[in-house]
Amino acid sequence: MKSCLLLSLLLLAACTQVPGGKGDFQAGDRAAIIDLQHRYVLAMDYFDADGYAAVFTPDGVLDWAGGEVKGRDAIRQFMASGTYDLRKLNFKPAQTPDGKEWPSTVRHLVTNQVIEIDGDHARAISYWMNYANNADRHKIEWLSFGSWDDELVKVGGKWLFKRHTIYNEGNAKRFTAGQSNPLER
Amino acid sequence: MKSCLLLSLLLLAACTQVPGGKGDFQAGDRAAIIDLQHRYVLAMDYFDADGYAAVFTPDGVLDWAGGEVKGRDAIRQFMASGTYDLRKLNFKPAQTPDGKEWPSTVRHLVTNQVIEIDGDHARAISYWMNYANNADRHKIEWLSFGSWDDELVKVGGKWLFKRHTIYNEGNAKRFTAGQSNPLER
Amino acid sequence: MKSCLLLSLLLLAACTQVPGGKGDFQAGDRAAIIDLQHRYVLAMDYFDADGYAAVFTPDGVLDWAGGEVKGRDAIRQFMASGTYDLRKLNFKPAQTPDGKEWPSTVRHLVTNQVIEIDGDHARAISYWMNYANNADRHKIEWLSFGSWDDELVKVGGKWLFKRHTIYNEGNAKRFTAGQSNPLER
Repeated sequence: MKSCLLLSLLLLAACTQVPGGKGDFQAGDRAAIIDLQHRYVLAMDYFDADGYAAVFTPDGVLDWAGGEVKGRDAIRQFMASGTYDLRKLNFKPAQTPDGKEWPSTVRHLVTNQVIEIDGDHARAISYWMNYANNADRHKIEWLSFGSWDDELVKVGGKWLFKRHTIYNEGNAKRFTAGQSNPLER
Repeated sequence: MKSCLLLSLLLLAACTQVPGGKGDFQAGDRAAIIDLQHRYVLAMDYFDADGYAAVFTPDGVLDWAGGEVKGRDAIRQFMASGTYDLRKLNFKPAQTPDGKEWPSTVRHLVTNQVIEIDGDHARAISYWMNYANNADRHKIEWLSFGSWDDELVKVGGKWLFKRHTIYNEGNAKRFTAGQSNPLER
Repeated sequence: MKSCLLLSLLLLAACTQVPGGKGDFQAGDRAAIIDLQHRYVLAMDYFDADGYAAVFTPDGVLDWAGGEVKGRDAIRQFMASGTYDLRKLNFKPAQTPDGKEWPSTVRHLVTNQVIEIDGDHARAISYWMNYANNADRHKIEWLSFGSWDDELVKVGGKWLFKRHTIYNEGNAKRFTAGQSNPLER
């Protein structure tokens, strides 16, 4: 009995660093949040309105240069509407050598995540940039850059955006230049 | 005895989220797959044919714009052959102020991974871009961009590429523009 | 008693893959090291000298193109001094449409980490690039690129830079072009 109790206590010590807890730096939660951000981008870049809306909570808010879009349904409609289609910028049509249409591509990089997790709530600060080959399919043209300040919640074991705020250093109303470290704000 | 059993059951609950399982979002597997991709790039960018081949299974396939390269040995020879040496593009020789040769550098960024894991098999969708300072050592010149669609297997506890498929938005035969979200394909 | 012992042994087996151990690819340690790198960049890009110094050990070394800066206090003073302020490069003042000052932004991307961990010591190889909108707030201008070779230590459960070495492919004294894979060095 004593040895079993001792063994159990040793196990308890070994298990205090449970995954999702502080002991492993919440590695699973961090990976899930970053995966969510990347699914958001993939859906955006491939114009998948359902996939784009699916990363938000039902009452989630997209807060971007064009204003606030509130709720998953409105967010789906926003993406489906083509309002945010950067392929139009400086676009020139192109064909493959065998005469097929060659559409252009817009892509978003998301990097440099700093994530702070408190139970089922989290905040993530990230850098984003976007680029395209709209004018010349063989050339990369950089479009704009900024940061995200995301509020996330874990619902039923799954992380989702509650508020996705997009700052843009090339937009007079959305830049953060001159401000203090966002981790201090 | 009873308290020990109770303690053990509590421990069991605490330990159900074992690392590598679903409970921690397979954080270890995800980290290992991303680490593998980064080792692949480092070996490629520093022209280390052995390191480049080592990330593939013995029967692994490299599926790129030039065709399929099948098996680790063929992949090693492919990298050692210098076929894929983008330092040649638009190259101009340069010297340091004290007269030493200053070679140019080609680098690949890999970002935006979305990884789906099923036991010892996984699929990873990633973005890639490459750049160089071939013409002017002080300048970044962007070369091309695309995505990877990787099939991975875990062999003896280690993740490896089984098939590494490279899409390229600047190549008429390898672009994905106009297609649906790769996660739906 | 017997069943309790058996249960405990099963628990022990389940718990051998403790977070931070080899079983989960040290996912928590890796996430913590990458988070540290991103906090370093955020502090640097928002000119937060305290945040910048906080990622180093008290005797940590910043090894960059300008030489070695030794110790957290010296590193804080270095960042506070404005020596490393790339907003000055090619700078042109700008205003928002409503007449407010519109400062420029410099950002650093850090990607492609390969991390090797041995207990409380680690080495991380990473790629970095930086860019700004100094001349035109609406344009991304790429400045320079290179790699980091970081020596890290875990002190009191927290990873910190012991030596942060910055290579720069656009600097005649700091390039790595022509060298072997850093993982072999």
